[in-house]
Amino acid sequence: MGSFVSFVDRLVDKISEKRSILCVGLDPQPQWIPEEIFKEASEQVKDDENAKEITARAILIFNKAIIEAVKDLAVVVKPQIAFYEAYGSSGIWAFEETIKFAKKQGLLIIEDAKRCDGGDTAKFYAQGHLGEIDVFSKSGFVKEKGVDADAMTVIPWTGLAGLDHFIRIVKEKGKGIFVVVKTSFRPNSAIEQIPTAKGTKMWEEAALLIKQWAQRCGGKSGLNNIGVVVGATYPEEASKMREIYPDAFFLVPGYGAQGGGAEGAVAGVREDGLGVIVNSSRGIIFAYERSEKFKDKPENFAESAKKAAEFSRDELNQALEKKANLPW
Amino acid sequence: MGSFVSFVDRLVDKISEKRSILCVGLDPQPQWIPEEIFKEASEQVKDDENAKEITARAILIFNKAIIEAVKDLAVVVKPQIAFYEAYGSSGIWAFEETIKFAKKQGLLIIEDAKRCDGGDTAKFYAQGHLGEIDVFSKSGFVKEKGVDADAMTVIPWTGLAGLDHFIRIVKEKGKGIFVVVKTSFRPNSAIEQIPTAKGTKMWEEAALLIKQWAQRCGGKSGLNNIGVVVGATYPEEASKMREIYPDAFFLVPGYGAQGGGAEGAVAGVREDGLGVIVNSSRGIIFAYERSEKFKDKPENFAESAKKAAEFSRDELNQALEKKANLPW
Repeated sequence: MGSFVSFVDRLVDKISEKRSILCVGLDPQPQWIPEEIFKEASEQVKDDENAKEITARAILIFNKAIIEAVKDLAVVVKPQIAFYEAYGSSGIWAFEETIKFAKKQGLLIIEDAKRCDGGDTAKFYAQGHLGEIDVFSKSGFVKEKGVDADAMTVIPWTGLAGLDHFIRIVKEKGKGIFVVVKTSFRPNSAIEQIPTAKGTKMWEEAALLIKQWAQRCGGKSGLNNIGVVVGATYPEEASKMREIYPDAFFLVPGYGAQGGGAEGAVAGVREDGLGVIVNSSRGIIFAYERSEKFKDKPENFAESAKKAAEFSRDELNQALEKKANLPW
Repeated sequence: MGSFVSFVDRLVDKISEKRSILCVGLDPQPQWIPEEIFKEASEQVKDDENAKEITARAILIFNKAIIEAVKDLAVVVKPQIAFYEAYGSSGIWAFEETIKFAKKQGLLIIEDAKRCDGGDTAKFYAQGHLGEIDVFSKSGFVKEKGVDADAMTVIPWTGLAGLDHFIRIVKEKGKGIFVVVKTSFRPNSAIEQIPTAKGTKMWEEAALLIKQWAQRCGGKSGLNNIGVVVGATYPEEASKMREIYPDAFFLVPGYGAQGGGAEGAVAGVREDGLGVIVNSSRGIIFAYERSEKFKDKPENFAESAKKAAEFSRDELNQALEKKANLPW
């Protein structure tokens, strides 16, 4: 590893500092963004016809308000790129600006992109999202940062042909990846569940391989910069994952709106209280509209998100305390 | 299916019309784009400092010349989005413009994005790349097309939680998907090769599931709009794949620069000569620099690409003729 503080160690520090294991998912579905924000956005756009740009600007206005509201309660924000790239270049602009803004607020960024390829393609994904890319300037080729997230999610299907490019950047640049091993969707992914010759399920064999590939990617905290995604909706699998890969950090989706409870979400935590970061998206950012507890008028969306984030942080900490030592 | 001509039927028609099964991969790595093109691009950019925009404009200039050169020889172009999204919003702009231009030249577009997710995220991917998205205009929410590729590649890891959103759009909009089942990378992906309880490899079980999920997605040509990716570097696996999933269209990467020969590339073809489309990227678009046979001066890059495309088309047709009836 280089002379930097590696991703997983920065994550551990933030968790202790903020006393929170909450990650807020920035999944800005337009149908739930308050209409006033769209009106504000359309005033910013000269070309009335460019509905993608209006939508992208509305997303950015919305995200900034959410980030301001949750910045002291969450340690990480996780923008899901699907909700931005749907609007083409305008959407990606909003994605880039969201990340810049969240970084300035002291939040770590896990980019949820679930990329998967091999060879030079995987290299471009890894460099473009976590590292540096070659660009042509007036003085010839130079290196520039791409998205520059702190960590990103990846899919293991292509094996080391894909992952080795990400692992290299993890080692060289102090970044992290979370490999999607056990998703939160119900029913289970039929692919992850295919029975193997060893009597296990596919995802368990994938976890074993990833652990093996993650050698020499450990941080000083004793946790590994190659983490895994394990859904909150499958707590038994989370415990099994912890046995398979003891020093992995788990990124846990599915808590909140997808139906996973706080206890299920922390099922994979280690005795020292480390090793899980729990994501909630809709349940927080659209709490004003989507939550029973924090329903409110559209103009109060940010306040409502703040209350939902506070509630989630506390609920997760209580579940953590029941299960393990608190890490702070 | 709707009243449109479905993707796979349009593909079959194009193959017969052009007497070609060639797909040209638009993977524009800047290191091989002639320097003159970068100079032309930098003159177009007002802000001298914006190296990502210069690079993106160079990519578009390069792509347009390549598309002009190969448009009568290839049936499909396959832009690999990793080589565009590395440059953020500027890169995605070049990606969108490339696709618009290629469509105007009568080429079909297979977007190589290998997306993979579930739930609403998968829905946004499917709508954003193949369908329509909700955007806010002066008159409220309206529907607009996203990338609007003819087909795209996807990864099966999340199972039906991801694929069902794509399958819906295949049925509703006459689009296609190619599920990545057996990649071309060497060595093999360790994940695809995990031995299953049935004595098969993971990828075979994935293929069986996909065939099952692809019911009622068939075109009039007798081929299915849910195709699979099968690397040219593994011809035995291609034959096995044909047994498992007889009416699948195979998108075959790995021919040319990755070392797969023409005979290996068509190993999975059906007796009627249909069911494979073979991709070459670097070996064609950067033939002036990367090919033994068609090496040339940088200013002749497009001419060299044209010769390489002609050679590839003919070589593939000869291999096809040895193995099956010609489909025209």
